Amino acid sequence: MTRTVLESKTKTVVIGFDEPFCVIGERINPTGRKKLAAELEMDDFSTVEKDAVEQVACGAMVLDINSGAVFTNRMADDPRYADNNFVEPMLMPELVKRVQSLVDVPLCIDSSVPGALEAGLAAAEGRPLLNSVTGEEDRLELVLPLVKKYNVPVVAISNDDTGISEDPDVRFAVAKKIVERAADFGIPAHDIVVDPLVMPIGAMASAGQQVFALVRRLRDELGVNTTCGASNVSFGLPNRHGINAAFLPMAIGAGMTSAIMNPVRQVEMEAIKAANMLMNHDPNGSAWIGFSRVLDAVKEGATFPEAAQAAAEGGAGRGGRRRRRA
Amino acid sequence: MTRTVLESKTKTVVIGFDEPFCVIGERINPTGRKKLAAELEMDDFSTVEKDAVEQVACGAMVLDINSGAVFTNRMADDPRYADNNFVEPMLMPELVKRVQSLVDVPLCIDSSVPGALEAGLAAAEGRPLLNSVTGEEDRLELVLPLVKKYNVPVVAISNDDTGISEDPDVRFAVAKKIVERAADFGIPAHDIVVDPLVMPIGAMASAGQQVFALVRRLRDELGVNTTCGASNVSFGLPNRHGINAAFLPMAIGAGMTSAIMNPVRQVEMEAIKAANMLMNHDPNGSAWIGFSRVLDAVKEGATFPEAAQAAAEGGAGRGGRRRRRA
Repeated sequence: MTRTVLESKTKTVVIGFDEPFCVIGERINPTGRKKLAAELEMDDFSTVEKDAVEQVACGAMVLDINSGAVFTNRMADDPRYADNNFVEPMLMPELVKRVQSLVDVPLCIDSSVPGALEAGLAAAEGRPLLNSVTGEEDRLELVLPLVKKYNVPVVAISNDDTGISEDPDVRFAVAKKIVERAADFGIPAHDIVVDPLVMPIGAMASAGQQVFALVRRLRDELGVNTTCGASNVSFGLPNRHGINAAFLPMAIGAGMTSAIMNPVRQVEMEAIKAANMLMNHDPNGSAWIGFSRVLDAVKEGATFPEAAQAAAEGGAGRGGRRRRRA
Repeated sequence: MTRTVLESKTKTVVIGFDEPFCVIGERINPTGRKKLAAELEMDDFSTVEKDAVEQVACGAMVLDINSGAVFTNRMADDPRYADNNFVEPMLMPELVKRVQSLVDVPLCIDSSVPGALEAGLAAAEGRPLLNSVTGEEDRLELVLPLVKKYNVPVVAISNDDTGISEDPDVRFAVAKKIVERAADFGIPAHDIVVDPLVMPIGAMASAGQQVFALVRRLRDELGVNTTCGASNVSFGLPNRHGINAAFLPMAIGAGMTSAIMNPVRQVEMEAIKAANMLMNHDPNGSAWIGFSRVLDAVKEGATFPEAAQAAAEGGAGRGGRRRRRA
């Protein structure tokens, strides 16, 4: 039974074939969020703090912390800021400390900069997930020793020095190579969480079927847990959330055990909670029934994060006690 | 390649492993719809006609016609009306004729009364689906000769004289028996659409997983198409549509090829359209993009059936030409 164990200061989250789907909140990531990057440059952590609390209230079980900020103004004053190998090892521990002072969930330390990964691992309480290793030779040689040293699980992305293959057999082979290389370091397969890479179906019509087939193989042949950047599947298409909300249950049915995603979206979270129940990972349906109270509060006029936060604090948001038919 | 071919007067619908999921509209069914039964007793077919047009506009590819009405008032005047063997063979052809005069989709002739099945088959244009045979001995002996005589496909429900088993292996064995018995009549497996029976997850926590596993076995071992009464899975639970909307993509991912369901529900239809695209059964995403315009019109204030009907007539409902982000 494959179980990837993550820990915060006091809480344990298990990613596994017989566990509820693990939602890893993706919001704390300045890449592509210019406003957030600008705030961080001003030492303003208010959005990070809001995102931490909100994501956990909405159902994130783990929070991804990505330190990939570009500090344009500081760069003008000090050319060292043009190098993320300089910026991120300072920023990452600050982000980690701020987040874990507010919420008690395991973290996912996410950077392309090895120094930031190590600084994040040193700052994190408990047993975080490391994000990520790939099949690229230099990345394997830099990241796997950190995984071993800190005894943490790692996300393994199935691309290598030749890039991202459109052939799922090649992506499987890359994942297998990473698992084997990790074994050489004494890292067990249950500490590897493979991301088989989800392509946009708008660009590749077989992308959904590829992922479902890959997830089954990764589980059956390598015995590993899996994750993905779920929203990528709907890139460029109208009404993306409807596609994501179908993709997630299908991926869960195929055996996917986690995703890095935005938990502050009701439709996707509803799909996951329902899929958990349909997979018999919600004993007595108590999680679904609790989530339904949040949905009821939304129908009464609350926003999803408002209703989720009120429920997390013991209520169920505006009007949440009244039931109304869908 | 399993293909179950259905026909209306001029149109062909194929249920198959490489086809979009076949939505069979369930609304024309007086069982449990007292108001509809009372209308039919007064020879008022207006609801039937409205339901026919609306379901097709919303995406039903086949319409189920169930004649199981109880005519309480006529019964008081004429005791023959207490017997559905008397009522349904008269009612079924009337329903069939009215519906096929309005919409050009294949029908699913649905009754527990063999005389009504035969009367429906005689009245239907094209190649309807017959609903249903079970593993019960008398039902096999009554229905399979009709299937053979009219050369139509049939829904095979996996219960038998011992009732509905909670053991999925028993339900598989019943389906296998029906397929074998049909073969004795010269009926090929591709004309059997098995309903593996979906239990409510509120009562049986493993019900979802049972169905997904059964659908795979039915497809891999018997090579048959499958169907189900999809909404049964969420019986008794709050926010049922959210569960249905996760169940359908998961069932489609497991290989289910049709469902008897209410197509006038946006969330379920959205889940199916997205799942079709994710299964690579929506070339170029054109069906999804068309459906997205209906969703946009709903966001602008139209009801789902209004928007769907406007789109079917060439527009996209109130305000449907404007796009708004979700």
